[in-house]
Amino acid sequence: MTRNAFYAQSGGVTAVINATACGVIETARRNRDRIGTVFAGRNGILGALNEDLIDTGQETAEAIAGLRSTPGGAFGSCRYKLKSLEDSAKEYQRLIDVFEAHDIGYFFYNGGGDSQDTAHKVSELGERLGYPITCIGIPKTVDNDLPLTDTCPGFGSVAKYVATSVREAALDVASMCETSTKVFILEVMGRHAGWIAAAAGLAKRHGDDAPHIILFPEVPFDDDGVLDRTRDVVERAGFCVIVVSEGARYADGRFLADAGTTDAFGHAQLGGVAPVLAQMVRDRLGYKFHWAVADYLQRAARHIASATDVEQAYAVGRHAVELALSGRNAVMATIVRTADQPYRWQLGEAPLEQVANVERTMPASYIGADGFSITDAARRYLEPLIAGEDPPAYSGGLPDYTVLRNAAADKKLAPFEA
Amino acid sequence: MTRNAFYAQSGGVTAVINATACGVIETARRNRDRIGTVFAGRNGILGALNEDLIDTGQETAEAIAGLRSTPGGAFGSCRYKLKSLEDSAKEYQRLIDVFEAHDIGYFFYNGGGDSQDTAHKVSELGERLGYPITCIGIPKTVDNDLPLTDTCPGFGSVAKYVATSVREAALDVASMCETSTKVFILEVMGRHAGWIAAAAGLAKRHGDDAPHIILFPEVPFDDDGVLDRTRDVVERAGFCVIVVSEGARYADGRFLADAGTTDAFGHAQLGGVAPVLAQMVRDRLGYKFHWAVADYLQRAARHIASATDVEQAYAVGRHAVELALSGRNAVMATIVRTADQPYRWQLGEAPLEQVANVERTMPASYIGADGFSITDAARRYLEPLIAGEDPPAYSGGLPDYTVLRNAAADKKLAPFEA
Repeated sequence: MTRNAFYAQSGGVTAVINATACGVIETARRNRDRIGTVFAGRNGILGALNEDLIDTGQETAEAIAGLRSTPGGAFGSCRYKLKSLEDSAKEYQRLIDVFEAHDIGYFFYNGGGDSQDTAHKVSELGERLGYPITCIGIPKTVDNDLPLTDTCPGFGSVAKYVATSVREAALDVASMCETSTKVFILEVMGRHAGWIAAAAGLAKRHGDDAPHIILFPEVPFDDDGVLDRTRDVVERAGFCVIVVSEGARYADGRFLADAGTTDAFGHAQLGGVAPVLAQMVRDRLGYKFHWAVADYLQRAARHIASATDVEQAYAVGRHAVELALSGRNAVMATIVRTADQPYRWQLGEAPLEQVANVERTMPASYIGADGFSITDAARRYLEPLIAGEDPPAYSGGLPDYTVLRNAAADKKLAPFEA
Repeated sequence: MTRNAFYAQSGGVTAVINATACGVIETARRNRDRIGTVFAGRNGILGALNEDLIDTGQETAEAIAGLRSTPGGAFGSCRYKLKSLEDSAKEYQRLIDVFEAHDIGYFFYNGGGDSQDTAHKVSELGERLGYPITCIGIPKTVDNDLPLTDTCPGFGSVAKYVATSVREAALDVASMCETSTKVFILEVMGRHAGWIAAAAGLAKRHGDDAPHIILFPEVPFDDDGVLDRTRDVVERAGFCVIVVSEGARYADGRFLADAGTTDAFGHAQLGGVAPVLAQMVRDRLGYKFHWAVADYLQRAARHIASATDVEQAYAVGRHAVELALSGRNAVMATIVRTADQPYRWQLGEAPLEQVANVERTMPASYIGADGFSITDAARRYLEPLIAGEDPPAYSGGLPDYTVLRNAAADKKLAPFEA
């Protein structure tokens, strides 16, 4: 029996989430006897609620293949969390109505923790509301905080970007430190966990290589400790490179980024932990400094994606379809590490109910005893994830990213009234 | 007759200044009958004043070749400007003493405007102080503001980085704008001229592609105009990507980055024009926003260097040595464009006295009539400069950059007392 599929991208996008979409759609197309049209939700689950479905069948094979090397979310993503079945009965009924109207029997949801929770709830539609649907979660998040999978597609490429950027910027600062900048601060993502900050540590190969100081959300920020260490490093190495997680915070839980700065009108100053830290360096150490905030650049940087990450992102998309076709339901496709060196991995699965709303934190054993560095255990975990290059095609000197037609499927229902 | 050479890197470093060093040293090595040792100044001209000379003869051919793909300044650079011969007689005499002690007959100085001024002054040592030296300037600056050369090595790679980053980040924002960030601001370098900001405009191929607004130092900043445009773009395209030059300023000359923000202690808030602009967007339009400051990441990003830029950086180094050997003196090696499409260029030369202290501004014809965009003329100029990729070698997932031994040559003089 042939039924159609729904695929959606959810939450913050990454450099490789479209590689997952590519894996889903190409695998579905190889199984046309079982899966008819793959409808993509425009802007994630909102596309289902609003019956705003993209008919991916209208995209050429070449366009779908191009997704493998295109960053961002090709169908649009959203930040939208479904409540429980009890609290949002209308929304769940609407999903069933839309799925039924378009003969959707497969639901693939590609996202992080909240999204796996949504996937889990949709999987309950079958039993609880009597609508037969096969529901598979697909991991994605630069935060690397999903449980039961060795890593989350998207993280390895951010890791490669930040480690590369730190290595490069450090060479710049090292050149100039005699007469110019002595402290360079790079702010990276990671509001709750220091995975991305830790990855920057891969830039260091020898003793006094950068980064010299990594500030993790997991380690309470202590002004004196950080500034003393900064001065020590500058005096010894001539310069100091600091990587700070956006989630760096004081022992009392206050974020550094909320350090109480105000503008000329007395309004609270907008985030950015790097400038706050730079200010401390200036006021208390007097060093010339520079700072950078990579923000979206880090998670969109497909041009320096990890080949391992791209391959895994594609693979979990393919595997999700294979799981569905083999009769699995209410599971998330996972990556299972079988060896560190040489790195080996295989695909697996985990029950959505065990994934939903569980946040994997970074092991304490990954942070050095000084609180400013990563351990060998962290390196063993992280190094394989940034391995290999998979550059996009270029034209005219710039990455030649794919833009889909994203043709809307005909609507069959009245508009949704929430 | 064989004489030794002095080579130094000056001012802010780039992703490709070491490619120029590679060109100088490899070419000198191919002319051992004329040029003995190439001494590099440790930290630019300071290395000459302090007799802190690096004996590049101790580096392997492989290490020197590795410079071609290593960012930063391998020998150290400096921000240090020699005054006139009249005002700094002791410094010039010291240069002569050091050159004489090490039999240096060739002086190669690799830098921007101030550095070409230094090169020019050193070239006067010959006539005015009776020391025979051949003096050649070599262009370098991400600011692209040297006259009499079509472009400055270093600029093309920053241009490629910012255009790539804007294209990538825009795909991210486009994916999320329905429920999340609607305005993204990227701050780029360019205190005096908008060359780098203009290059970001290359990311746009079609009508509503990003960047939607470019803020140049050349166009006085007008709050209302920029915010109105931002709102129009968000309403039409769903999101707005703004590229702002660090040199963006009001009509009265005040930099946006000096917008009078203060920290909790009342200290002036440290630069960063992106957060200032973000604040305006929040306060007056209410849109969710994100901002990034690329800072050193943009000029150190050898991993995404322009192949054209790398080739030209190497070529001006080679050409500088060839000019010296052919008896030319007091000139800077230049890049001469002979055709836009297909792009053709050749090497040339310009008298240092015409280069020194002349700043090339961006032609007004490169800025669109709206003041927020670039013209076709700008595209014709810029596009060839970002063409081609020349990735570094990778190992362990990261660029494998070269670190030199940088062995010091024996000192022959007493320390310099300024």
